Amino acid sequence: MSNDLTGAVLIEDMTDRERELAQRVESVLPALRERAERADAKGEFPMQNIAALREAGLLGLIVPEAYGGLGGGLRDLTAAAFALGTACPSTALAYFFHCSSASRGLLPLEALEAGLFSADEAPVVKAFAEKLLARMGRDGLWLANFASEQVKTTASAITISTEAKPVEGGWRLTGTKSFGCSTGVADEYLVTARLAGTTTAEGLCVFFVKRDAPGVRERSKWDSVGMRATATHGIILEDVFVPEEEALALPGAFVKMMQMSRGSFVGNQVAVAAIYLGVAYNVYQYALNFVTGLKFEDTGKSIAADSPFHQELIGKMTVELETATLWLRRQLELETAEPPILPKPRVVAQWRLCKGVVCDAAFNLATLALKACGTSNTGDHGVIARGLRDLSMGLVQAFPAERGRLEAAKMIVTGAEQASFSSRK
Amino acid sequence: MSNDLTGAVLIEDMTDRERELAQRVESVLPALRERAERADAKGEFPMQNIAALREAGLLGLIVPEAYGGLGGGLRDLTAAAFALGTACPSTALAYFFHCSSASRGLLPLEALEAGLFSADEAPVVKAFAEKLLARMGRDGLWLANFASEQVKTTASAITISTEAKPVEGGWRLTGTKSFGCSTGVADEYLVTARLAGTTTAEGLCVFFVKRDAPGVRERSKWDSVGMRATATHGIILEDVFVPEEEALALPGAFVKMMQMSRGSFVGNQVAVAAIYLGVAYNVYQYALNFVTGLKFEDTGKSIAADSPFHQELIGKMTVELETATLWLRRQLELETAEPPILPKPRVVAQWRLCKGVVCDAAFNLATLALKACGTSNTGDHGVIARGLRDLSMGLVQAFPAERGRLEAAKMIVTGAEQASFSSRK
Amino acid sequence: MSNDLTGAVLIEDMTDRERELAQRVESVLPALRERAERADAKGEFPMQNIAALREAGLLGLIVPEAYGGLGGGLRDLTAAAFALGTACPSTALAYFFHCSSASRGLLPLEALEAGLFSADEAPVVKAFAEKLLARMGRDGLWLANFASEQVKTTASAITISTEAKPVEGGWRLTGTKSFGCSTGVADEYLVTARLAGTTTAEGLCVFFVKRDAPGVRERSKWDSVGMRATATHGIILEDVFVPEEEALALPGAFVKMMQMSRGSFVGNQVAVAAIYLGVAYNVYQYALNFVTGLKFEDTGKSIAADSPFHQELIGKMTVELETATLWLRRQLELETAEPPILPKPRVVAQWRLCKGVVCDAAFNLATLALKACGTSNTGDHGVIARGLRDLSMGLVQAFPAERGRLEAAKMIVTGAEQASFSSRK
Amino acid sequence: MSNDLTGAVLIEDMTDRERELAQRVESVLPALRERAERADAKGEFPMQNIAALREAGLLGLIVPEAYGGLGGGLRDLTAAAFALGTACPSTALAYFFHCSSASRGLLPLEALEAGLFSADEAPVVKAFAEKLLARMGRDGLWLANFASEQVKTTASAITISTEAKPVEGGWRLTGTKSFGCSTGVADEYLVTARLAGTTTAEGLCVFFVKRDAPGVRERSKWDSVGMRATATHGIILEDVFVPEEEALALPGAFVKMMQMSRGSFVGNQVAVAAIYLGVAYNVYQYALNFVTGLKFEDTGKSIAADSPFHQELIGKMTVELETATLWLRRQLELETAEPPILPKPRVVAQWRLCKGVVCDAAFNLATLALKACGTSNTGDHGVIARGLRDLSMGLVQAFPAERGRLEAAKMIVTGAEQASFSSRK
Repeated sequence: MSNDLTGAVLIEDMTDRERELAQRVESVLPALRERAERADAKGEFPMQNIAALREAGLLGLIVPEAYGGLGGGLRDLTAAAFALGTACPSTALAYFFHCSSASRGLLPLEALEAGLFSADEAPVVKAFAEKLLARMGRDGLWLANFASEQVKTTASAITISTEAKPVEGGWRLTGTKSFGCSTGVADEYLVTARLAGTTTAEGLCVFFVKRDAPGVRERSKWDSVGMRATATHGIILEDVFVPEEEALALPGAFVKMMQMSRGSFVGNQVAVAAIYLGVAYNVYQYALNFVTGLKFEDTGKSIAADSPFHQELIGKMTVELETATLWLRRQLELETAEPPILPKPRVVAQWRLCKGVVCDAAFNLATLALKACGTSNTGDHGVIARGLRDLSMGLVQAFPAERGRLEAAKMIVTGAEQASFSSRK
Repeated sequence: MSNDLTGAVLIEDMTDRERELAQRVESVLPALRERAERADAKGEFPMQNIAALREAGLLGLIVPEAYGGLGGGLRDLTAAAFALGTACPSTALAYFFHCSSASRGLLPLEALEAGLFSADEAPVVKAFAEKLLARMGRDGLWLANFASEQVKTTASAITISTEAKPVEGGWRLTGTKSFGCSTGVADEYLVTARLAGTTTAEGLCVFFVKRDAPGVRERSKWDSVGMRATATHGIILEDVFVPEEEALALPGAFVKMMQMSRGSFVGNQVAVAAIYLGVAYNVYQYALNFVTGLKFEDTGKSIAADSPFHQELIGKMTVELETATLWLRRQLELETAEPPILPKPRVVAQWRLCKGVVCDAAFNLATLALKACGTSNTGDHGVIARGLRDLSMGLVQAFPAERGRLEAAKMIVTGAEQASFSSRK
Repeated sequence: MSNDLTGAVLIEDMTDRERELAQRVESVLPALRERAERADAKGEFPMQNIAALREAGLLGLIVPEAYGGLGGGLRDLTAAAFALGTACPSTALAYFFHCSSASRGLLPLEALEAGLFSADEAPVVKAFAEKLLARMGRDGLWLANFASEQVKTTASAITISTEAKPVEGGWRLTGTKSFGCSTGVADEYLVTARLAGTTTAEGLCVFFVKRDAPGVRERSKWDSVGMRATATHGIILEDVFVPEEEALALPGAFVKMMQMSRGSFVGNQVAVAAIYLGVAYNVYQYALNFVTGLKFEDTGKSIAADSPFHQELIGKMTVELETATLWLRRQLELETAEPPILPKPRVVAQWRLCKGVVCDAAFNLATLALKACGTSNTGDHGVIARGLRDLSMGLVQAFPAERGRLEAAKMIVTGAEQASFSSRK
Repeated sequence: MSNDLTGAVLIEDMTDRERELAQRVESVLPALRERAERADAKGEFPMQNIAALREAGLLGLIVPEAYGGLGGGLRDLTAAAFALGTACPSTALAYFFHCSSASRGLLPLEALEAGLFSADEAPVVKAFAEKLLARMGRDGLWLANFASEQVKTTASAITISTEAKPVEGGWRLTGTKSFGCSTGVADEYLVTARLAGTTTAEGLCVFFVKRDAPGVRERSKWDSVGMRATATHGIILEDVFVPEEEALALPGAFVKMMQMSRGSFVGNQVAVAAIYLGVAYNVYQYALNFVTGLKFEDTGKSIAADSPFHQELIGKMTVELETATLWLRRQLELETAEPPILPKPRVVAQWRLCKGVVCDAAFNLATLALKACGTSNTGDHGVIARGLRDLSMGLVQAFPAERGRLEAAKMIVTGAEQASFSSRK
């Protein structure tokens, strides 16, 4: 089997259909790679990439064909994230969050099928879900997904303070979303907010917000150390009106949605880790080429072939790359295998570990690569330094490895991961 | 799918036939586990285990059915090694070396089929190979395999100084084999020696030596820190006569044999690593049970549920276990998949890394388990301390991780791993 | 300055007096080293060592000269512990606990001087303290110190369930002390118990118990993985009578005593860590000698000089040894410098870190040494394997590194370590 | 003793004179800190800092008072480097290289005193040395030091290809110096070149080159990931004329100079490591303040006080900081103690280890700090991300830890470090 497809480095056993989708991804890589360095230097979203992805039909990668999408699944999304990560990590991340928005359509449809909604609720849920999917698939819109916020309370790991008040014909939203890719770039924003007066996850709802709607503005530009071209500035919403039909404002709908996910939270997270793995893979290939190209001036012989410290570093880099790859493949397998290999709580615990292992290993690899490639590769915008900066973001995104391990361990010692499949059936 | 078979923890996708063989392994585990502690304490081979394994038909596990064996392959051997490792690591190791002897029959048969031997050589090779396999399968003999030696030269990683001189009707062997399980225990010894007058691998040949043949004696008892019940004392051969028909003394035969192996050296090594993983799995299960059983005296509440340092340790242990498991499964996949996923040189390089990752992770897990279980688990013959001791042997057996990484890196930087499939065809 | 004194490897700036005391320690090392292997193999306390230490006057090493001791301080005890650790770690540990008993005399005397006791209490405290010191110094008795217990409660890290009931002319003690060196070996036991009816540290008191007093018996023999010759079996006390004058049964006395300590708990703990460092130092020297002595059979050249993986291991071992040494010296400096460098709470936090760094580094060093020295050094009673086993005890004794770090961090984030010197003045 | 002086955090036992010098350093810190962020953002040398350091008299910090300097030593330089590192790491680095130039004056004077030069050579050496020192001290010039180059040969770790040809009245220099702080900024450049026709270190000589001399130009701007404001662009010399009196072009002088150094190469290197430690110290303080300031929105309680993963990270950060500090203090002690504690070869080997330990620990600390401080501290120019970037440079500057360990180990196994004091006397 040839390795002509970057995504096939990660997913070795692609079906023909998966290879077709991966081929679309492959086709955009050169252009994305071309624009990556400048986008990073400027800290600006490379707008042409959206057009390139749209043209390749990839905005609907995981949207069912019925809604104009390509009908891909988590394996396709993960392979795409990995491949894009090797070319332009920022674009990969923004693309992931766009795709991940589809879960707000897919999971409700699954919940519907599972009979989790009443006869009254069903049509509302169905209408919203189909609208969302059609926008991504048929209409080729680029979405931003504003879910998490910065504030923490003792009560909950996820605190949403953005509030939606019912008004005539719809809702008015007020709040601040600290982070979120594609700020000022996406065609529409998908905003998670809490219904006024509620305090639990039951009150969480999803709203479409137009990028230029009155009351919407960007927070100050987020000039970050890595993943600089994602336009992750966040938004401030002040009394923003959202018409009724642009919302899924049904108490409990969010929670039911989450029950359908096979992994953590709303699922798909494994694809984010694949982006960081893609970055690491690119750094590894670059470093290996660079180091094996080093020659002694006088003899022309390879330095690396006779340099134990280069070999020590390369040996460790290879272990880091392989370890991250194996964990990621395993997580993907756990979240896609039919029948399931492990019960959901165990899959969730595994994800808490996996995210940290992958991101730590990827960052360690970049650190080792820096050491192996030396001072002449410390240029801020070269592959090595850029990789190190982009991968530093992976250490903190969502949660660091140390936190993931403690949470997984807590699940394990309290037997939480032993729980049956009850959440799915 | 139920997890009733220990080996299925490692190999999740067993075929029905594989499950049948794994069931035979499972049946001997209780007896082996029962005898393990005392065998370790005494540092003596638990002789009854040979009978137990023989009765279960397992002495011919990877011997073709045509020779009275069970016809299993590397997956079966690896699953067995893992399962036995959870019960009695010493027996697992001696059993592995017994099974591994089959390669001296299987690889020659493969080389024959590949046409590597001349018409003159073919019958000699065939006769020896079939004799060996029949002894393991049909006759149920327990073999010891004396290959490697301690002396090192600049010329070669493997130096064999034991010499075979041609005499009337056979050969006379002289030399010292420093290590080798089942000394004084095996029914017969399989001894690798160098034909007198040769200096390269071309001169390596294989001889059957009777345990009690004149001139054979044991080196002094090897009272080791771990894997204490393997009877790895080594032998001294002084002018030991071996009849012609008990030898495969054909120059070049050993090298041709090795060409047929898909992994490193004569193959099968992945199953040794599975033993250490089995030990680690057992330590993990014990530690988790112990820690979750700790209660505060006054409230009866679980200590671990509210003890971050226990959780930190368990989180790390879980990562170590999973990392080792994933690397081992991957190596097994690389050595068994059809068609091959990677070319042989890359599989060999991966093994150099894999062995170290698995054994280091297993040992680290035991160290973390010791910390988590505390002073009341420092008894020399408890699961934790015994595991730590047994796993310390894994750090040095064959080669330590640091050496494996350097060697793999050297292959990688010199492009050795890029070589084509030439060695197989 | 010559390095003739083992203790001077650790403490480079010894005064003349310190060198005199270190010379006494040096004089017993050969005999202790001689007996160490057999004592470890048998798991039996080498009784002759007590006589050797007594003859050298070392039983009163840190007892003031006024009470027949040598008047040494923490620097002397630490140097002695390190030196003894290189020869016989078990004896070093039992000796440490003997010496550490002196704190039950020294700290009360300091507290007296600081005016912490009332006029009524003072004579009682003084009498007990002087009796204890004279027994160690003038009488040359070997003491065992039974303080900590195994049971844990939510209320406290240290829970003492052994209870002392007042009876005519003294007390009756009942309880189990799980661990404690010199069980059945020491001339007398120093036992910490809780006055009946009390629940806080205020109720903790100290009692002399005769080894063979009615009601005293040993728990079952503790056959541990390392530090095997310390006779750490623990005792069971059933209604054991202790005459009034053999106790310091003054409510609050224990707490006042602890206030005088400059380090953690009753102080001196840094000397325990020095024992493990001594073991590691011995392992390092052995491994270095062994590895540099390895030669290629054919050329006679040094293997290590041309073996990157040996060099990688030695480089790491050297870093571990130096790191452990530097932390230990620093802790000792913090606990002995006048005027104090840091306030006591910061010294305590540093100790929580130091203990873990030293013991982890020492154990890592032994693991690396095992890898560097290879299979021929896996004999259970050789320096390498014995070192690994002895050092595994250091990982769990008192607390593992992971726990120490969490506790230190908690002190740091809650500002506990910022507290003033109030506890000392 | 108060901790009012930043340098005193590292060097606790400063003399009064050392405190005076440290006070001068302290006085410039606020201004440097103020300008640091912008200088990093722009990647431009903050020119005002030179004036600030000159005004404080610090350009002659380690120049003897006889030449208009402050007469400080390595302890003063190290304390200054640490303190400046907490404020503006780039300036600290450029300042270090300026100060380090003094070794080209100090070491020759020491070699003179040691009688290493002939009667003919002595006046030439003396004149050059005094000129250099006076320029730094009396004249307050800021120097750049161009020594190392990028090209590697099998013959030597240090290869100098820049060549000096004798011409009438002086020399003509041609070559490329890839790295060197203060390019285009320093008043004069100190350039190490090889006399035409020589191939060994005997031929190395030192030349003063005017910044704007004909034939001198800058290489392209080096836009690095960290230490961005050092103007480390490197220079290209094409037939640059240097008058005889501006050179120390005496064969063998360089080697004699190096013999006088107590540490590695030309000494002083320990102060570079102190800069990275200073950066790490600043990151630590910032992170600790940030984390302890995190509060739960609903209760106002400290998050860190009840967050094990924050505590785990802080515990590890504290260990990294302390470990780096202890190694650095030790190296400084080894290079300054009288009489010497260890022979020079052992001090050199220790430095190979120390550099790696300090820089790895500093970088690890920043990585942990990033994890502890989370996404809101990933701004490219905040303390955390800037620290991570600056510290990444420390990983590769001079040599990475992996290389240093291998070199130290090689010295140790070949007994090179056992060599006597011969190099000094």
